[in-house]
Amino acid sequence: MKYIEGGICAPKGFQAAGVHCGIRPNKNKNDLALIVSDVPCAAAGLFTRNNVKAAPVLLNMETIRSGRGRAICVNSGIANACAPDDMKNAKLMQEAAAEILGISAEEVLVGSTGVIGTPLPIDAVRRGLPILKENLERSAEASDAAARAIMTTDTKKKELAVSFEIRGKRVKLGGISKGSGMIHPNMGTMLCYLTCDIAIDQPLLYKALKEACNMSFNRISVDGDTSTNDSLIILANGLAGNAMITEENEAYDTFRTVLKELCVELARQMAADGEGAKHLITCEVSGAKSEEEAEVLAKSVISSSLTKAAVFGGDANWGRVLCALGYSGVTFDTEKTDIWFASEAGEVKVCENGKGLLFDEALAGRILKEDEVIIRCAMQEGEGSAVCWGCDLTYDYVKINGDYRT
Amino acid sequence: MKYIEGGICAPKGFQAAGVHCGIRPNKNKNDLALIVSDVPCAAAGLFTRNNVKAAPVLLNMETIRSGRGRAICVNSGIANACAPDDMKNAKLMQEAAAEILGISAEEVLVGSTGVIGTPLPIDAVRRGLPILKENLERSAEASDAAARAIMTTDTKKKELAVSFEIRGKRVKLGGISKGSGMIHPNMGTMLCYLTCDIAIDQPLLYKALKEACNMSFNRISVDGDTSTNDSLIILANGLAGNAMITEENEAYDTFRTVLKELCVELARQMAADGEGAKHLITCEVSGAKSEEEAEVLAKSVISSSLTKAAVFGGDANWGRVLCALGYSGVTFDTEKTDIWFASEAGEVKVCENGKGLLFDEALAGRILKEDEVIIRCAMQEGEGSAVCWGCDLTYDYVKINGDYRT
Repeated sequence: MKYIEGGICAPKGFQAAGVHCGIRPNKNKNDLALIVSDVPCAAAGLFTRNNVKAAPVLLNMETIRSGRGRAICVNSGIANACAPDDMKNAKLMQEAAAEILGISAEEVLVGSTGVIGTPLPIDAVRRGLPILKENLERSAEASDAAARAIMTTDTKKKELAVSFEIRGKRVKLGGISKGSGMIHPNMGTMLCYLTCDIAIDQPLLYKALKEACNMSFNRISVDGDTSTNDSLIILANGLAGNAMITEENEAYDTFRTVLKELCVELARQMAADGEGAKHLITCEVSGAKSEEEAEVLAKSVISSSLTKAAVFGGDANWGRVLCALGYSGVTFDTEKTDIWFASEAGEVKVCENGKGLLFDEALAGRILKEDEVIIRCAMQEGEGSAVCWGCDLTYDYVKINGDYRT
Repeated sequence: MKYIEGGICAPKGFQAAGVHCGIRPNKNKNDLALIVSDVPCAAAGLFTRNNVKAAPVLLNMETIRSGRGRAICVNSGIANACAPDDMKNAKLMQEAAAEILGISAEEVLVGSTGVIGTPLPIDAVRRGLPILKENLERSAEASDAAARAIMTTDTKKKELAVSFEIRGKRVKLGGISKGSGMIHPNMGTMLCYLTCDIAIDQPLLYKALKEACNMSFNRISVDGDTSTNDSLIILANGLAGNAMITEENEAYDTFRTVLKELCVELARQMAADGEGAKHLITCEVSGAKSEEEAEVLAKSVISSSLTKAAVFGGDANWGRVLCALGYSGVTFDTEKTDIWFASEAGEVKVCENGKGLLFDEALAGRILKEDEVIIRCAMQEGEGSAVCWGCDLTYDYVKINGDYRT
């Protein structure tokens, strides 16, 4: 596989657009996006596990039961959650998008992200849709406009596409996503939309998506909060012309590997762009009793406020790492744990068999200055390993979230 | 019961002292404390559930198995955790304290709080002990000196004493505690030492302590981190002269009620003095299906970084509260949830049956300016209720924890 340009418009038969329709006060900020396939698609989605689910999430869960879909309409600025008429507005958005595209409402998935509790200005959405329709294009610019329309406090656009081969046929997969606060295992306020021209049976599409999600979006955390609106949706329209994948064969393996890699890369970008983040924190746990336990341990480290603040402060405070491993809920022999800090600047072992080592503080300081800081924990208890991603806790996180709504 | 002066020296037969022995660089900061009873005591303790336990915790768990104790020696500055010779130093500290007091090592409990991974300078402890012995007093000043010796990033001393009556006998209970980061349900880096002159069987002392802890220290959170060193210890020496409490009678009920109230008050003070905190956040959940579920819901709210940042920013962002209830793991009908913000400045209902209300933003702003902000959630699903305490997330939290070790 190789990374290519074009984002969600890279796969055959997908068009996209993004515009400012008036939900957000800033006229230079896109707030409504549309993604549509020339032909009906197999569709699969994963949604927030929060007990409180936004109306568009509840509606999508219903819509996607058919396993089919063709278009996605999504806004930023307002979450359309816990607000008067939230479900009514989600359905109006779905119907209006279907009407403008001349397809059935059952083929349209919807999404929203932003403030909870404020009613969605459906008239703004209705005004925006004809402009979106007019702007629909199969171009990198169109993907870019859609990617920007779903951003909230993100500072960087997240948009990727890859090209790979399945039995001689060229297949393309594209994706856009947004963070950037409230990101936590089991998905935070994250939206991710994937387009693919592969021909694949829907149950296999769902299975591959779920596996990729568990290895990527479910392994990142910004602040431990899980939102009401999280959604990960993939549309696969089959226009690549590969023989339909109907079983877990080699072609399926290729697809799931590529899908996982793309999702991991988008997840890493989301963690790195966590609200106020200055550093991506990658925690690699090895030697745990199982992969599940390795994941729990790594998540505990990247979720620890004290560890996150220490990385922000450039402080190689490994005691907080060991402490976070300790309160993860996993039982382990403390006297076997080794810990390293690493980055492009080098690597330093700071703890061996659960005891602190004398280490080169100057080197540690340089290591912690790099954009990506790796915390490596070797448990020496088994074969389980996992990688999770988070970010540091900064003044800007507090600033952004102290006055987000006002 | 009534609050009285004297702290841990208020109960009959207890002496205390606190000095600077040289563990901490600042000579004006006490770093070693001693508490001792004239006679042997029933002793009970609860310790961190972190899988990584500091040496003094492991040693105390062993020592306190006898159900007896007479003295507590504790230092701040260094946690004596995950450091070379940590257990050896904990035992040396125990033995040195026993020797200076002329009692057996099995009667001495030890404690440490501070940086993980750095060896405890046992010579400083040894130098400090004779001075502590000389300073031992049954006075408010002595309790104050001990309370200050266990503080780390706390900005306020936590020290309380109460007097109450059991069948005509005057009984006193005193306590000192320290926070203030890494405070989380199941105890954060918290140390709390209680002295009481009640006569009570040890199993009942333990039972009352555990219940009080569950309703107080296990219901506060500063940052979700649980430390390696948490300890809550009570010594009861029987000098009040009440008839020995040997069953769960009225006298026991009086004691457990008083103990719970004192622990709740210390816990509230610890939450209010969380690192960098400007506000105490009290979350009252009512109408949950059970008390357990109410506690899980309330803890989720006070632990939410987004809710904590919103309170810091004076933003009545109730969507984050509902969201935190939603990801707590408890299942509930979203369409029944009511939410209020309240404080000494008034009360405002912001969400009814899961939907946002139009509310007086100016009043909400005034409410959020008070030192204690109450978030009240009515689930309307049952009879379970619980109160948990936390604090806001501020620039100072990040500052304090960005360079704590360096």
